[in-house]
Amino acid sequence: MSLYLHPSITPDTIREAKGAGIAGVKSYPAGVTTNSSSGVVDYESFYPVFAAMEEVDMVLNLHGEAPPSPSTATQSTQQITVLNAEEAFLPTLKSLHERFPNLRIILEHCTTAAAVEAVKQCGPNVAGTITAHHLFLTIDDWAGDPINFCKPVAKLPSDRVALLKAATSGNLKFFFGSDSAPHLLSAKKGLSDGGLGAGKCAAGVFTQPNVVGFVLEAFQNACQAGIAKEGDLNQERVRGFLGGYGRKFYGVAEGSARIKLKAGGASVQNIRVGGPSGGESGMSDTVVTFRSEKPTYAVEWV
Amino acid sequence: MSLYLHPSITPDTIREAKGAGIAGVKSYPAGVTTNSSSGVVDYESFYPVFAAMEEVDMVLNLHGEAPPSPSTATQSTQQITVLNAEEAFLPTLKSLHERFPNLRIILEHCTTAAAVEAVKQCGPNVAGTITAHHLFLTIDDWAGDPINFCKPVAKLPSDRVALLKAATSGNLKFFFGSDSAPHLLSAKKGLSDGGLGAGKCAAGVFTQPNVVGFVLEAFQNACQAGIAKEGDLNQERVRGFLGGYGRKFYGVAEGSARIKLKAGGASVQNIRVGGPSGGESGMSDTVVTFRSEKPTYAVEWV
Repeated sequence: MSLYLHPSITPDTIREAKGAGIAGVKSYPAGVTTNSSSGVVDYESFYPVFAAMEEVDMVLNLHGEAPPSPSTATQSTQQITVLNAEEAFLPTLKSLHERFPNLRIILEHCTTAAAVEAVKQCGPNVAGTITAHHLFLTIDDWAGDPINFCKPVAKLPSDRVALLKAATSGNLKFFFGSDSAPHLLSAKKGLSDGGLGAGKCAAGVFTQPNVVGFVLEAFQNACQAGIAKEGDLNQERVRGFLGGYGRKFYGVAEGSARIKLKAGGASVQNIRVGGPSGGESGMSDTVVTFRSEKPTYAVEWV
Repeated sequence: MSLYLHPSITPDTIREAKGAGIAGVKSYPAGVTTNSSSGVVDYESFYPVFAAMEEVDMVLNLHGEAPPSPSTATQSTQQITVLNAEEAFLPTLKSLHERFPNLRIILEHCTTAAAVEAVKQCGPNVAGTITAHHLFLTIDDWAGDPINFCKPVAKLPSDRVALLKAATSGNLKFFFGSDSAPHLLSAKKGLSDGGLGAGKCAAGVFTQPNVVGFVLEAFQNACQAGIAKEGDLNQERVRGFLGGYGRKFYGVAEGSARIKLKAGGASVQNIRVGGPSGGESGMSDTVVTFRSEKPTYAVEWV
């Protein structure tokens, strides 16, 4: 369980939370002050909180994006867009790591080659998570397709290559984090804000039921594309990325439960979450799963 | 009226069309051969057609985007995305211009600083059109908002600045082209392909009913942001961008009809195109207009 970084959190809150078994504090850029002229996120008011987290060894989970520039920004302003928001955040990551070298920090859902490089350059207390969907998607996949739209947005093909390399590299700094979001299809399509239904699309991709299979498929694609070598992708690396490296970073002992995957044994199903029983499922009671209807691995507990 | 560039078009077709009063031939990348390893569009088979167009002085209207790379492309392939497709097309524009220097070419709906620069570097037989919506939009406006999604996609803030500068510069090479697309809201949301409604969004922005007002608003925004100087934006430049420069390029005489705009005199309305009379308008009989419900100029014929 995590706390949400908010001005009401004090060093005492952190110590109390640690005692109660809280593992981390999640920070979203919306929760912090922004110097909008430069896009730099100002965490200064949270320094005492971070110092307490460092002291009690609690993880800082960063949504690493600089907040967007106001649309009135002029040509002389450095403009933050969905495309460069993560890269613009990286100096903040580095400065937090320098100031609190013993604070364990996770740059959540990395989407760029620049983020991968920044995590590598930091010490062992900084790691990065990578989602299953960002191992598949690039900008072309969400341009005009709300199902694949999430934040941070999927970036360029070269960024996807960097994520696949990091995920398959056996580097303990990179491990899987699903960031799966079960929005209703009506919300994904931006129909749920009243009126005609011309609203904005909810950001988030739903992968949870099939996420282990998706990662395996992405790894296979990486091998086929020459991004990873099949010989390097032994069970240790796959298991490490999917769970082991994350457990190690969090200091959680290895579990005993195991799953078994069977290639081609299933297809991706959407999830029905409510609505009247019987009859057709509609947009307001369906969560569309990533790679819907595509063949995938069957998973069973062993 | 225009022809569509297609293998069935011959030099004779061009001469016949010219006689019938056809002004131009529109080329979409889908209609031509692509060398997918480099993204370069191969127009070679159309050279005899272009030579005939040059001879009879017919305009070539280019949708200037390199076709997307296949998603199986590997890391070593140059990858074309919605973001770099226009810039990747510019060498094709330049080579066509070099080979057919007397062929009048319009790079339609320019969206990047690179396209503006390429049009400037070519001789006077090459011009570029700019839409109203690309004077407003950047990537953040269509990320998660199908209403603002079009092709070519709106790019970065720096690209929008370049478009505003070109449009307000008084350079005869740049003039307005609406590229307005009246898709039904159900198509814009990708609901119309059967099944659940989890389909892809139709590309295109609908601006036609308010397009002159939109251009004026964009010019005012440019002045406020310091991108253009209000003193430079005299009536000649505004009228030139909206119609005069285009007429000059096409060799069409100035018309006598005039319109008058009244600031703040109206708000942007959506268009109802069908459906049962009476009752609420639904997604399948409504075209949502760009900047829907925002105040805008009232237009009247004088």
